Amino acid sequence: MDFLDELIQITSNERVSTNETVLEQHSKDEAYLEPKNPDYVVFPINSEEVSAVIKLANKHKIPVVPFGLGTSLEGHVIPYYGGISLDFSLMNKSIEVRPDDFLVTVDPGVTRSQLNKKLKQYGLFFSVDPGADATLGGMAATNASGTTSVRYGVMRDQVRNLEVVLPNGEIIETGNLAVKSSSGYHLSSLFVGSEGTLGCITQLTLGVYGIPEVIVAARVSFADLQGAVEAVVDLLAGGIQLARVELVDEHSIRQVNLSNERDFEEAPTLFLEFHGNDAGVEHDISFAKELLAEAEGSNIIFEKDVKDRNALWEARHNLAYSFVHGHPGKKMMVTDVCLPISELAGGIQAAREKMDALSLDGALLGHVGDGNFHALLMIDMTDEEEKRKAEAFNEYIVHYAIDRGGTCTGEHGVGAGKKKYQQKEHGQSFEVMRQIKHAIDPNNIMNPGKIF
Amino acid sequence: MDFLDELIQITSNERVSTNETVLEQHSKDEAYLEPKNPDYVVFPINSEEVSAVIKLANKHKIPVVPFGLGTSLEGHVIPYYGGISLDFSLMNKSIEVRPDDFLVTVDPGVTRSQLNKKLKQYGLFFSVDPGADATLGGMAATNASGTTSVRYGVMRDQVRNLEVVLPNGEIIETGNLAVKSSSGYHLSSLFVGSEGTLGCITQLTLGVYGIPEVIVAARVSFADLQGAVEAVVDLLAGGIQLARVELVDEHSIRQVNLSNERDFEEAPTLFLEFHGNDAGVEHDISFAKELLAEAEGSNIIFEKDVKDRNALWEARHNLAYSFVHGHPGKKMMVTDVCLPISELAGGIQAAREKMDALSLDGALLGHVGDGNFHALLMIDMTDEEEKRKAEAFNEYIVHYAIDRGGTCTGEHGVGAGKKKYQQKEHGQSFEVMRQIKHAIDPNNIMNPGKIF
Ligand SMILES: Cc1cc2nc3c(=O)[nH]c(=O)nc-3n(C[C@H](O)[C@H](O)[C@H](O)COP(=O)(O)OP(=O)(O)OC[C@H]3O[C@@H](n4cnc5c(N)ncnc54)[C@H](O)[C@@H]3O)c2cc1C
Ligand SMILES: Cc1cc2nc3c(=O)[nH]c(=O)nc-3n(C[C@H](O)[C@H](O)[C@H](O)COP(=O)(O)OP(=O)(O)OC[C@H]3O[C@@H](n4cnc5c(N)ncnc54)[C@H](O)[C@@H]3O)c2cc1C
Repeated sequence: MDFLDELIQITSNERVSTNETVLEQHSKDEAYLEPKNPDYVVFPINSEEVSAVIKLANKHKIPVVPFGLGTSLEGHVIPYYGGISLDFSLMNKSIEVRPDDFLVTVDPGVTRSQLNKKLKQYGLFFSVDPGADATLGGMAATNASGTTSVRYGVMRDQVRNLEVVLPNGEIIETGNLAVKSSSGYHLSSLFVGSEGTLGCITQLTLGVYGIPEVIVAARVSFADLQGAVEAVVDLLAGGIQLARVELVDEHSIRQVNLSNERDFEEAPTLFLEFHGNDAGVEHDISFAKELLAEAEGSNIIFEKDVKDRNALWEARHNLAYSFVHGHPGKKMMVTDVCLPISELAGGIQAAREKMDALSLDGALLGHVGDGNFHALLMIDMTDEEEKRKAEAFNEYIVHYAIDRGGTCTGEHGVGAGKKKYQQKEHGQSFEVMRQIKHAIDPNNIMNPGKIF
Repeated sequence: MDFLDELIQITSNERVSTNETVLEQHSKDEAYLEPKNPDYVVFPINSEEVSAVIKLANKHKIPVVPFGLGTSLEGHVIPYYGGISLDFSLMNKSIEVRPDDFLVTVDPGVTRSQLNKKLKQYGLFFSVDPGADATLGGMAATNASGTTSVRYGVMRDQVRNLEVVLPNGEIIETGNLAVKSSSGYHLSSLFVGSEGTLGCITQLTLGVYGIPEVIVAARVSFADLQGAVEAVVDLLAGGIQLARVELVDEHSIRQVNLSNERDFEEAPTLFLEFHGNDAGVEHDISFAKELLAEAEGSNIIFEKDVKDRNALWEARHNLAYSFVHGHPGKKMMVTDVCLPISELAGGIQAAREKMDALSLDGALLGHVGDGNFHALLMIDMTDEEEKRKAEAFNEYIVHYAIDRGGTCTGEHGVGAGKKKYQQKEHGQSFEVMRQIKHAIDPNNIMNPGKIF
């Protein structure tokens, strides 16, 4: 019996595909990197099946690449060495809420929007919100974060327990349902962010939050980027509990105006959100108003109603979409450094200067409350010169960040694209990561060619 | 040259001891377990020295047991296999504050009270506050937590970067200065809670917080434990931002009254604290008052001034001390389970019933906002029957917790005392921990006999 027959035998005929279109769909993510087809796509329906597939693959030393929704940005899901793309889209049914414990247990293919729809019935919400709708398995695997991390933390902070199928097919649980534990090594934190290189996540138990009593959104413009960033630093230092704080530069707003026929002021803009009780938020807002005025913010708008808040956030939410649709035929390349807050203003300044020096067309935006910002470049992939310049820009900003105690990736992860920076960023500890990878996956079948 | 001479050569004569008194001081922690002397105590003064000592020990396969202040409660620092007790008390000088980044970098021997004294000058504080003053190295190694974890998180949540000397003598850094990162495996979280079994922490970079604008403490009594626990669940579900919520039972208060000539009401009591801005805290308090009244809390007191707050907390703070001093000749044994919040009331009830059934003399108290509670038993170590009963009680409550998705240790760690529960709690993932231990410390020189 050949490998394909064996695969079908332990799953089913309909759930193993070698169809060209299906293979192609699993050859890429949203990265600017060259695609490569897997040999098979398998759609498992439960943990036991995942285990059986991985056991078989391990026996034959055939690569397995977990696949969520393929929205990652560094070639995470590209099967460079062929093998199986393991697509979790059929494992997306179960969402079990434990409202008293502020916990939910989900299948790995459940998306964050699917989860939030369910949680709403309980007055709860899940806080991590990457720009794309993504699977919770994929979000855990990349340690995703988003606009609310400044207040609620990143994916790693929400994960209480993972069911993981190891490269040898064993099924383990990495945590428990308690709020905290000092028992043994903290495997949950190891598997979060491991990008499918240590095993497959087949179930997640996540912390959730009560929907805040009051939510107020705000938008404020600045004469320049520095002013906007300094305002953020002042707000954080002032002890104001920001639930969201996003920076968008004038280039971004121009693109939103162009693509959506809007007339938002084309200036560096902060989008803020405050969560809490009535009195606390009011107090925070009045203090924030003072600080923003001192920082020479203008056109300050506050909105409380859902509809008005959504309208206020529109320019931010439509950003990636506006760029992609405004540059047909081009490919988006997004940088993702994260800096200590004290280095943020300098980093954004340096990025803008470098972009201008290279005559690159792009925008700067970011989750600035975390020190995380992106340059969003639209690249003509047939123009070698432009590609080289974009790559040089990315390299410049990554080195800038690492040299100042920052990281090459705040939230998107390493995948294939950021492999080359790992040695510089981690130094000797990269060897420890390698030892752990080798101990858990001695045959290197899990997502080979990523991170390492 | 024998091993002792080599040790002295790479450190100094004064900083290697084989003096009986010094050995004995390093033979035990605050656990109820039998002590055992190390062969040598070494007091390194910097990372390079730690590295040299560990390299030498690794060459000769001689055990190394890191020693902070020896306040741990499960025999963590007992050198069961002899070798070197590596005492970090001389590495306690450097405290570098980066106020704009809300970060501080410290030597491993710096204690939390020493750190807070320094931070106060900047209007900052470090949140993790175990009952004993402890070193930050020891606190990271046990993933310590305390009264404020319900709001600010545990030790793991504060650690941004660790300098670690590995068992092969290599010096690595596990993280960076950015608020978040998705770059590579999260080694910081692996080393936090590893209890010295993977290496020595020689420097820590930790997140700190602004001292809140307003702090209000509260105390409230209940007719029974169940009522108190249910009140906590209501407060949490109500979205009230508690900075502290501690439960102390009537037996505890009785002991405090006895030992300190006080007349606190001998009833199950909650100690609460609210941090925030004026308006927010006021709003939270008025809502809390409502909920506490509904939950039939009585004698509700709120205090805002430092002196009054300290007086209010007195009964909680003096607890361990009162028990130890009220039972001369006896040894304290503390259980430490953590349960999902929804299981907490049942767990505390079960603990009380079991304690009564075994006629054990003890109190219940805990960081109940995290689902973490302790039974504090005073044991006559010469009474075999009493020792057996205490052990049986611990075993009962640990199994109770694990069976309900909880953990055998919420904050004290595994050490020697909780080793026997690891297989049951972690199942197959215990094997993964073993693989990691073996990959990083193949000669098993680092704190052997702990966790595994
Ligand atoms: C427009 C846009 C905006 C974005 N904004 C953000 C943002 O704000 N923040 C952010 O963090 N990211 C952002 N991203 C990146 C991306 O959405 C995240 O990385 C997301 O977590 C990927 O999830 P996914 O389900 O698409 O996973 P995939 O892309 O399918 O996979 C991602 C990685 O996880 C692994 N994986 C997937 N499922 C599993 C599993 N069950 N078990 C083990 N490994 C698995 C894969 O092998 C791969 O290595 C954005 C992307 C786009 C296109
Ligand atoms: C009265 C009392 C109350 C307590 N209350 C709490 C509480 O509320 N919460 C809580 O979490 N704990 C509590 N504890 C337990 C204890 O204080 C903590 O476990 C503390 O973190 C131990 O710190 P230490 O400096 O004394 O470390 P030690 O006891 O010396 O060592 C603890 C462990 O860490 C390792 N270690 C120490 N330093 C290093 C280093 N630099 N590198 C690597 N490993 C190292 C040791 O090998 C050992 O395994 C309490 C203890 C007492 C006696």
